[in-house]
Amino acid sequence: MNQIASKPATVDRLQPKNPQGLVVVITGNGKGKTTSAMGIVLRACGHGKRSCIVQFMKGDLYSGEWDGVKLLGELVELHATGKGFCGIRGNPYSRDEHRANAQGAMALAREKMLSGNFDLVVLDEINNALKHRLVDLEQLLALLDERPPAMHLVLTGRHAAPEVIDRADTVSEVNEIKHAYRKQIEPQPGIDY
Amino acid sequence: MNQIASKPATVDRLQPKNPQGLVVVITGNGKGKTTSAMGIVLRACGHGKRSCIVQFMKGDLYSGEWDGVKLLGELVELHATGKGFCGIRGNPYSRDEHRANAQGAMALAREKMLSGNFDLVVLDEINNALKHRLVDLEQLLALLDERPPAMHLVLTGRHAAPEVIDRADTVSEVNEIKHAYRKQIEPQPGIDY
Repeated sequence: MNQIASKPATVDRLQPKNPQGLVVVITGNGKGKTTSAMGIVLRACGHGKRSCIVQFMKGDLYSGEWDGVKLLGELVELHATGKGFCGIRGNPYSRDEHRANAQGAMALAREKMLSGNFDLVVLDEINNALKHRLVDLEQLLALLDERPPAMHLVLTGRHAAPEVIDRADTVSEVNEIKHAYRKQIEPQPGIDY
Repeated sequence: MNQIASKPATVDRLQPKNPQGLVVVITGNGKGKTTSAMGIVLRACGHGKRSCIVQFMKGDLYSGEWDGVKLLGELVELHATGKGFCGIRGNPYSRDEHRANAQGAMALAREKMLSGNFDLVVLDEINNALKHRLVDLEQLLALLDERPPAMHLVLTGRHAAPEVIDRADTVSEVNEIKHAYRKQIEPQPGIDY
C-alpha cells in the first residue's frame, strides 16, 4: 500500500522565488475548517515542515486528529487546551474557566510561534474563542504582528473578525449546503470527529 | 514533541449507535477542498480506518500530500492518476488523453471501493473531472450506487453536479474571500501545494 500508482513520467515542482509565510483564515458555518487545517498540516509534513496545532475550546471530546497526528511523528505537536464549546448546552464550565483556558492557550501559541521550532502554527477555533470573548481582539492582532515572516499561521473557526480577515493573505469561507445531522444521522468517526 | 499537553481530566468519546458511511462533497472556488479531504484522511487514521485517495487530473505537479500520506503508513494509499488540469494554459495533453486517464481512475476507484480494504475513499477533483466531461454523470452516479454502506466517500472539486449534491449526506461549499495569489504572492509549499 501507500503507493503512487501512476504518476506521469515527468512531475514538475514549484519553488517560490520569494518564500514567505502566509496567514490563512478558514471560517464559515460548514464542515471542513479544522479538517482543512489538518490537511494543511499533513501537506506541510510532506515538505518536511514542522507544525504546532493549538486547539482552543476543544479538549473534552475525543477527535481522530489527536491520534492521527501521532502518526506524523516528530513533525507535529498538538495541544488540545480547552474544556469544550463555551455556551453550548451541557457544557459544565463557567465562562471564566473557559477564558482562563483560552488565555493559557494564547500564551502557549505565542511561545510556540516564537520558539523557532515551527514552520506552521494552527490556532484551531480561535475565531470562535474571539467571538465568545475568551480572547481579546487586541491580543490576537498583537499575536499576528509578532508572527515570524517565514512562518505560516492558520486560524480556524466560525465568525472570523473583519480585522483578522483584513490581515490575512488567504481566507476561505466554508458554507454548509447540507449536513448529515439535519437528517438525524449521528456524528460518524473519521468524518465528523 | 507530539504531545497533547493539557487535555482536561475527562475526555468523552462519541460512539454512534448506528455507524454508517457518509457521502461528503466539498466544492466551491476557495482554497481548502483537497486540503479538507486530506484532513479527513488524517482524522480517519486516528480511528485506525484505512483510506484510499484517487486524485483525478492531478499528477503532473508535486504536492506535499504525496509524501505526507507516506507518514501515515499502511493506513493510506494515494494514486495521483492525472496529467494536470485539462484545458489550462500550458497543459500539453489532449482532451482524449485526459479522458483516458480519468476513465482509468474511475476503474481504479471502483476496484478500491469494492475491495473491502478501505473504510474511506476520496475521489479528489472528481467534480472538476465531471465538469470537463472526462467522466460521465451516469458513470459517477452508478459508482455512488455501488458504495458499500459502511464506507465513507469524499468527493472534491469545483462545480459539483446537482445530482451528486442530491445524493450526498454532507456538502460544503468553500468560497474564496481572499487569496494570496491575487496579491501576486507565489504558491507557498505547505500551504498551497
